[in-house]
Amino acid sequence: MIDLLAKLPGLGPRSAKRAALHLLNKREPLMRPLAFAIAEAADKVETCKICGNLDSINPCAVCADATRDASVICVVESVGDLWAMERAGAHRGRYHVLGGLLSPLDGVGPDDLNIGGLIARASEEAVTEVILALAATVDAQTTAHYVADSLAGSGVKVSQLSQGVPVGGELDYLDEGTIAAAMKARRPT
Amino acid sequence: MIDLLAKLPGLGPRSAKRAALHLLNKREPLMRPLAFAIAEAADKVETCKICGNLDSINPCAVCADATRDASVICVVESVGDLWAMERAGAHRGRYHVLGGLLSPLDGVGPDDLNIGGLIARASEEAVTEVILALAATVDAQTTAHYVADSLAGSGVKVSQLSQGVPVGGELDYLDEGTIAAAMKARRPT
Repeated sequence: MIDLLAKLPGLGPRSAKRAALHLLNKREPLMRPLAFAIAEAADKVETCKICGNLDSINPCAVCADATRDASVICVVESVGDLWAMERAGAHRGRYHVLGGLLSPLDGVGPDDLNIGGLIARASEEAVTEVILALAATVDAQTTAHYVADSLAGSGVKVSQLSQGVPVGGELDYLDEGTIAAAMKARRPT
Repeated sequence: MIDLLAKLPGLGPRSAKRAALHLLNKREPLMRPLAFAIAEAADKVETCKICGNLDSINPCAVCADATRDASVICVVESVGDLWAMERAGAHRGRYHVLGGLLSPLDGVGPDDLNIGGLIARASEEAVTEVILALAATVDAQTTAHYVADSLAGSGVKVSQLSQGVPVGGELDYLDEGTIAAAMKARRPT
């Protein structure tokens, strides 16, 4: 058990031992419920056939929610980023999980990502806007360009998250690249 | 000397003692040159009468530089932020240092900032654009709105730094406010 716990991100060999002892001391209130929850999740959680989200229902709760705006698709790298967008509550449409980023150095090409599914959705559904919510890293922006190019003929509006000063950010503590990006993308007041 | 060193930002009583001993051990290579440099700066550094920058010449080197674009004024809170903008190399025009931010709680009103000087510059000089390069904090954005309103009748274009994802930023590690701001300020690819 300790060896397996130590494979979890955020746990090393020492903290895995500590976690194991904690579990053994709380067999009924924590250990058995956790074992059951993990086994149940392993059985029930599926990848949404529409967007690639993880959920116990398929299509996922976001895709199945009729109150959400089906005309706007927000493209994210991973399910973790989808959850981050939901935490922010800034998107009332649907999602599309790419499942990674283009990375020639790591041998990740367009066929390894769920880009074909996005193009199909953009053409089949009543989609008017695709928002690329990808990170401000080199790989993510390369991927954003590739996806935008792939959607160029589809007639949908393609937009992306603004880059600039993060909320609460003070100029003196920002890196030069962010200041330069915020300057380049400046907008009328 | 230790008491005075301890008043510097970043130094406490203990590190001031350590700095003092370090100085006393390096009298010729460090201590005397430092004393001279501080005294010289106290004599020579002035506030630029045009923009509020600190420099040994007046007008400052930025205002005196004929190769810089006099038609674009970048408004910053402090000289530290002016230096941050110069580090980023993102602005080839001139600056205007407000000398603080509006803060009703701290009793800082419009008359405490160099806003009148900015309005005078915007109307007198051949200025076409004023860029508000203020932080993404509440006080800074309140100040930005006030300055933009003050310039409303002057006919110059007023813009501000974009808010959004900082360079290198990954969605999963960003706060919700920044994601929401980046979503709101999204732009076409």
